Amino acid sequence: MPSPIHFLKGHGTENDFVLVPDLDASIELGADAVARICDRRAGIGADGVLRVVPADDDNAGFFMDYRNADGSIAELCGNGLRVFGRYLVEAGLERPGSFTVLTRAGVRTVTVPADGSDITAAMGSRVVRRVDGLRVCVGEHGWDAVDVDLGNPHAVVFVDDLAHVGSLFDPPRVLPAGSYPHGVNVEFVVDRGPRHIAMRVHERGSGETRSCGTGACAAAAAAAVRTEGADASGRWTVEVPGGRLRVDLHPDGSVDLTGPAVIVGEGTLRAVLGPTS
Amino acid sequence: MPSPIHFLKGHGTENDFVLVPDLDASIELGADAVARICDRRAGIGADGVLRVVPADDDNAGFFMDYRNADGSIAELCGNGLRVFGRYLVEAGLERPGSFTVLTRAGVRTVTVPADGSDITAAMGSRVVRRVDGLRVCVGEHGWDAVDVDLGNPHAVVFVDDLAHVGSLFDPPRVLPAGSYPHGVNVEFVVDRGPRHIAMRVHERGSGETRSCGTGACAAAAAAAVRTEGADASGRWTVEVPGGRLRVDLHPDGSVDLTGPAVIVGEGTLRAVLGPTS
Repeated sequence: MPSPIHFLKGHGTENDFVLVPDLDASIELGADAVARICDRRAGIGADGVLRVVPADDDNAGFFMDYRNADGSIAELCGNGLRVFGRYLVEAGLERPGSFTVLTRAGVRTVTVPADGSDITAAMGSRVVRRVDGLRVCVGEHGWDAVDVDLGNPHAVVFVDDLAHVGSLFDPPRVLPAGSYPHGVNVEFVVDRGPRHIAMRVHERGSGETRSCGTGACAAAAAAAVRTEGADASGRWTVEVPGGRLRVDLHPDGSVDLTGPAVIVGEGTLRAVLGPTS
Repeated sequence: MPSPIHFLKGHGTENDFVLVPDLDASIELGADAVARICDRRAGIGADGVLRVVPADDDNAGFFMDYRNADGSIAELCGNGLRVFGRYLVEAGLERPGSFTVLTRAGVRTVTVPADGSDITAAMGSRVVRRVDGLRVCVGEHGWDAVDVDLGNPHAVVFVDDLAHVGSLFDPPRVLPAGSYPHGVNVEFVVDRGPRHIAMRVHERGSGETRSCGTGACAAAAAAAVRTEGADASGRWTVEVPGGRLRVDLHPDGSVDLTGPAVIVGEGTLRAVLGPTS
């Protein structure tokens, strides 16, 4: 039997992760093991795994080795970055306040208050583009869409009622066909008040999810341009099915995402790294 | 913040549980806390909680306080009973071999081999009844059904192909209407060979599940009567979506269920007993 490994489970707006601290970078975490850990019935269950390893980089103390639930490698996860930051501070590996984390998308700044309140993560830059003829369709409904780049691609549509959008289990159709050869995340957005929106999201490869960090940023960025013009900046509130996020759109194009990060439990894993029972 | 509590996560044929050892019977586990623990994104995630408490009973050492994922109380869970037995032996609270566990359905014998192999649980008695006109319908398909009582009610139907049964997310219609005023578990069964069947199950209140212990027993009991007559007994193999179970139908009407029980991890819980974040 393989030796037990330490884990924690946590979530940010119900986007949930198993953290695996690996401070001497000795754990071989293959796709198989990740899929077993993330299996919601035969494993611990999560949307992904965050392995915590020292960064081989002068600009950050730790590297966030993020894997999707199927074991595939992903560049960045905004909700995961907050949970990662919470762990580093709770474990005494970083001090409260602002520090940097190395991700596959580059070095990102995370701000973790000492009092356990919401965490802010720098999400990179936004590019909002109005593309003629870009449309999203679900069932018999269709909407004009706005293209937003946040390192990954988003198509944002504004709707009257989130409940009436229908099932987002399958990818919405995006026109013209071929607009996003590698797929696209699609956000459905309703107005809730001044600089306040609510959204549902279809994440490419995952279906409808409880929360998507870059999706919340993309939705706020598109809503800001729509209501305040191309150079809009400011602080937005974004409700997602799993909770509430804050998006700060800075004049220089950068975006900060703020929201909760909760560690639910911790312990040792076994069985999941061995053969299936 | 409430003090952390010890937990383990385990499963039997992918019917999964959070075990909460409470050896001094001091943990107040309200429906709210159970639902929070079983939340698959904001909690640890499971089909139910098994609280381990000393039995106030001369005939058993421990009481299995089983709760459904929504916090409601349930009488018995065959897959849970195996996981419960595995824990008791691993924790040194019972010795390997046969011992008794107190459940809300009465005292049950569990046999846990010292080598970690499959566990046998006594499931009580079976009563198989052919009821004229009893039918189960899914979409446009309908089948004659056999009524099986295993402490809880089952309607078993024999089909040609499990995949063609369709979605079991919603309760199948059972005719005549009102046959089961408190609902019924429905098993869809195909032959796989001599005393060997495979099944899918709709569990009342839960939808389609990966495994149902009493359902596997009911399916084997109905299949035995169908192929070998009213007094059939013997050893059956039952494939469920989450694995493989063995059902022993004894001539006295009693039923034993044998299958895997795996502890996946253990540690301490927090946050889930406190207010929602």
